[in-house]
Amino acid sequence: VNLLGDLDTPVPIVDLSRLERNIGRMAERVGATGTDLRPHVKAHKTREVAERQRARGAVGLTVAKLGEAEAMVDAGFDDIFIAYPLVTAAKLGRLLTLLDRAQVRFTVDSAEGALAAADVLGPTGRTVEVIIEIETGNGRTGVQSEEEALALAELVDSLPGLRVAGMLGFGPGYVEGEAAQREIARQEATIAASAAASIRGAGHVAARIVTVGCTPTSPYAAEHPGVTEVRPGNYVYYDCKQVSLGAATLDDCALTVLATVISHPAPRRYILDAGMKALAGEDYGWGTHGRLLEHPDVLITRAAEEHGIINLPDEVVDPGLKVGDRVRIVPNHACGCSNMHDRVFAVDGERVIETWPVIARGRVQ
Amino acid sequence: VNLLGDLDTPVPIVDLSRLERNIGRMAERVGATGTDLRPHVKAHKTREVAERQRARGAVGLTVAKLGEAEAMVDAGFDDIFIAYPLVTAAKLGRLLTLLDRAQVRFTVDSAEGALAAADVLGPTGRTVEVIIEIETGNGRTGVQSEEEALALAELVDSLPGLRVAGMLGFGPGYVEGEAAQREIARQEATIAASAAASIRGAGHVAARIVTVGCTPTSPYAAEHPGVTEVRPGNYVYYDCKQVSLGAATLDDCALTVLATVISHPAPRRYILDAGMKALAGEDYGWGTHGRLLEHPDVLITRAAEEHGIINLPDEVVDPGLKVGDRVRIVPNHACGCSNMHDRVFAVDGERVIETWPVIARGRVQ
Repeated sequence: VNLLGDLDTPVPIVDLSRLERNIGRMAERVGATGTDLRPHVKAHKTREVAERQRARGAVGLTVAKLGEAEAMVDAGFDDIFIAYPLVTAAKLGRLLTLLDRAQVRFTVDSAEGALAAADVLGPTGRTVEVIIEIETGNGRTGVQSEEEALALAELVDSLPGLRVAGMLGFGPGYVEGEAAQREIARQEATIAASAAASIRGAGHVAARIVTVGCTPTSPYAAEHPGVTEVRPGNYVYYDCKQVSLGAATLDDCALTVLATVISHPAPRRYILDAGMKALAGEDYGWGTHGRLLEHPDVLITRAAEEHGIINLPDEVVDPGLKVGDRVRIVPNHACGCSNMHDRVFAVDGERVIETWPVIARGRVQ
Repeated sequence: VNLLGDLDTPVPIVDLSRLERNIGRMAERVGATGTDLRPHVKAHKTREVAERQRARGAVGLTVAKLGEAEAMVDAGFDDIFIAYPLVTAAKLGRLLTLLDRAQVRFTVDSAEGALAAADVLGPTGRTVEVIIEIETGNGRTGVQSEEEALALAELVDSLPGLRVAGMLGFGPGYVEGEAAQREIARQEATIAASAAASIRGAGHVAARIVTVGCTPTSPYAAEHPGVTEVRPGNYVYYDCKQVSLGAATLDDCALTVLATVISHPAPRRYILDAGMKALAGEDYGWGTHGRLLEHPDVLITRAAEEHGIINLPDEVVDPGLKVGDRVRIVPNHACGCSNMHDRVFAVDGERVIETWPVIARGRVQ
């Protein structure tokens, strides 16, 4: 495989120059603030992109699942934050093994979770740093108030094997426009930083980390004086969702799925060989599943598992495709798309430079 | 691993007795009509389920992608129908290799597709049987009329390496209730059978196959006198979608995702460790992502990649879960869910009987 034309479809393609530009821009914006950048690997799940992030100053990596942490430690990374509660004995046992090879922190947001972790970690004599998650408006995990954060910190620091190292906030940062993104960044930074200060004030002096931010909000959150770390993930690739939020332009989108027109059964209808199994299922309520890089007005208006269906609305110019033609689809959600593939191909224009295994794909445990 | 409790989460679980019952029921219903059953493997993608289908009389297997055909031939199956147009030279070359080990048919719905296939297959001296797809109301692939089908049959049978073996229709069979399902079955059967008769009448005597039907419609389509073969897939597992259509009950659902409650941050909110990466992204516009097997009124009301979020509506009784508790989620779409996992665990009650690799997972090429 030397050229894009040698690849069969559907196949995920990473534009190297866009990738490097995206990584560089975020590194510069966050770096200028002095805040640590600990990118979330969920977007790419590869050693090769993570190495580029490290080369541009990332202090370590963020992951969601322990299995992703294991993949990245196997790939040579030794400072991992699992931004997720670990509450099963099986996972805490695997965490112990991983601690021989890397510094690993994880999230706690409940007394039950803290007690489960102490049960496994306490008897070993090791002490693991944990980050307490606090609700910042996203309605997902996280303690509900600074009072609850303080109470959980008291419990954690009373248990063997655990020490509170800081606070985590997460979003809701997928909002449209810089003003809204700045406001969410301010909110999550304020809530997390205030809770961390309270905890430190109560004597938990190791609670020094304040980690917040996703792709749209990280550049702004990094400017907040109380924040020590941001965790953007998607920015390496961007996607239709980020473009819709104004966090990127279509020209920033580095991950596409190369697809073939397999049928043109009727006027103004094309069928591509990339459906939900190649693009991922997220439609964000749009009812569409990606757009063509070469024809940005042309949307995948319907997707089955293996079919990407384009029914052209009246106002869209017919791109005049033929059966056998190839197009590149910008997915709705690059992170979900990465997870559908065992490898991605890194390209420079029409040249295929490298094949990157998606080492953390499917690591849901 | 001997018991369900030994498995870490999230993890896909197949209830063996439900699976066997589902396979048996469809085999009996279709078998009673004398119509061939050629189940679509997309739902399960495993050797073990396909072997159970073969043992109950399936004449062969249906797949969507050539890569799935390769996986199933490697697993010991020798009669495969790729219900999908093959138009790239790379795939047609792989098809040639596969023909040494199995009978493989595929779909054609365009002159360009037929010509591309003849270019590769013609010079080899082999003749491959192809099925012409005709539109039956689904708005996806397929020629648009009987006249187009006849013209394509004329072309195909004039080309070296190809012979028309019949007609394919597909849906739209995902409709609610037996009456609607019977009507769709009647329509697709009538259209496909009529086109096949016309083609045979024009001298294309090998066009003997009329293949139609999905899970809701196959039992009815099989009764139609012109139909020779039905291709249900989902019925081995069923899911929330099939239950919503009345094609199954919740007690028929054989595939679930075992998940752990990782957070209970606020009253009437639970967070599970199974999100879109464990359940797949399809929400069918419902805004929900599955329901709890043990508490069928409790829906996953929101899903992130790694979080299944339950926000209980006022009218739903609180199941009273605690952090660390385990639940089983019936996914919206079992086929999509299967594709997210490298293996499934077959269980009998609380006993884990076997581990089945999902051999055709991710075979989008």
